[in-house]
Amino acid sequence: MRTHRAILIAAALTAVTTAAWAQMKPEDAIKARQSVMRVIALNVGPMGAMVKGDVAFDAGVFATNAARAASVSTMALEAYFQEGTTSDDSRAMEEIWFNRDDFESRLEDLRDNLARLSEIAAGGDEAAMKDQFGEVGKVCKGCHDEYREDE
Amino acid sequence: MRTHRAILIAAALTAVTTAAWAQMKPEDAIKARQSVMRVIALNVGPMGAMVKGDVAFDAGVFATNAARAASVSTMALEAYFQEGTTSDDSRAMEEIWFNRDDFESRLEDLRDNLARLSEIAAGGDEAAMKDQFGEVGKVCKGCHDEYREDE
Repeated sequence: MRTHRAILIAAALTAVTTAAWAQMKPEDAIKARQSVMRVIALNVGPMGAMVKGDVAFDAGVFATNAARAASVSTMALEAYFQEGTTSDDSRAMEEIWFNRDDFESRLEDLRDNLARLSEIAAGGDEAAMKDQFGEVGKVCKGCHDEYREDE
Repeated sequence: MRTHRAILIAAALTAVTTAAWAQMKPEDAIKARQSVMRVIALNVGPMGAMVKGDVAFDAGVFATNAARAASVSTMALEAYFQEGTTSDDSRAMEEIWFNRDDFESRLEDLRDNLARLSEIAAGGDEAAMKDQFGEVGKVCKGCHDEYREDE
């Protein structure tokens, strides 16, 4: 009974969050995930430059970028990384489809760590922001090493 | 004196927000703006489907999407729409460079109206959400009619 209910709830949630994407064409799914990842990178990049000292640390800019990256990471990446959407236009590797649980757990790690970065950045503690930025970097690198083709 | 200070402040803000993009290659600027616009569209699309009644209205999903669209719209679109980045890979029209003030004022309208949509959506008033969504739609259409090539 509990399992049955859990399945119903899961089905309802999936319907709400992915209904619009269920019929997404592979090329649209690829563009969607690439856009989300690029927007995250456009926000992470300047934070990385501040952490490395390439540009002056600005806690306000850092917090804004962290909030934007966290927000965008909650989009339907599971749906955009649909099985079978390997393509010459995409660096996503087919290992994603073979290790779906691991891949989705890494997406959750990304969201959790970006949300934490955004929270910490709102507090303005520069050292804590830099530490947590390092954690985000590990999650990015870990997943890219496993599931993204080298350029 | 006031003018001088305003100029200094504006210069400092510009340095902080666009330093990382000042040296952006045209192809990177094009990808950046297309990614931002696509992420906005990926969030606006499901809201539009709810407003039209194509899918059931879900105030929580609507509010989440509105917040994400508002957040992403604050990115450095002025820098991504750099003068001279007209391209076969982009529908941005060169009229943008000739009417820079009008174009940037439309970007501000977009941000203002998305921020307002996000605020209203957080309140959960369905009729107000639909009204304000209409205002956002007008801003999108107005700018696309002027500055985006038809497909």
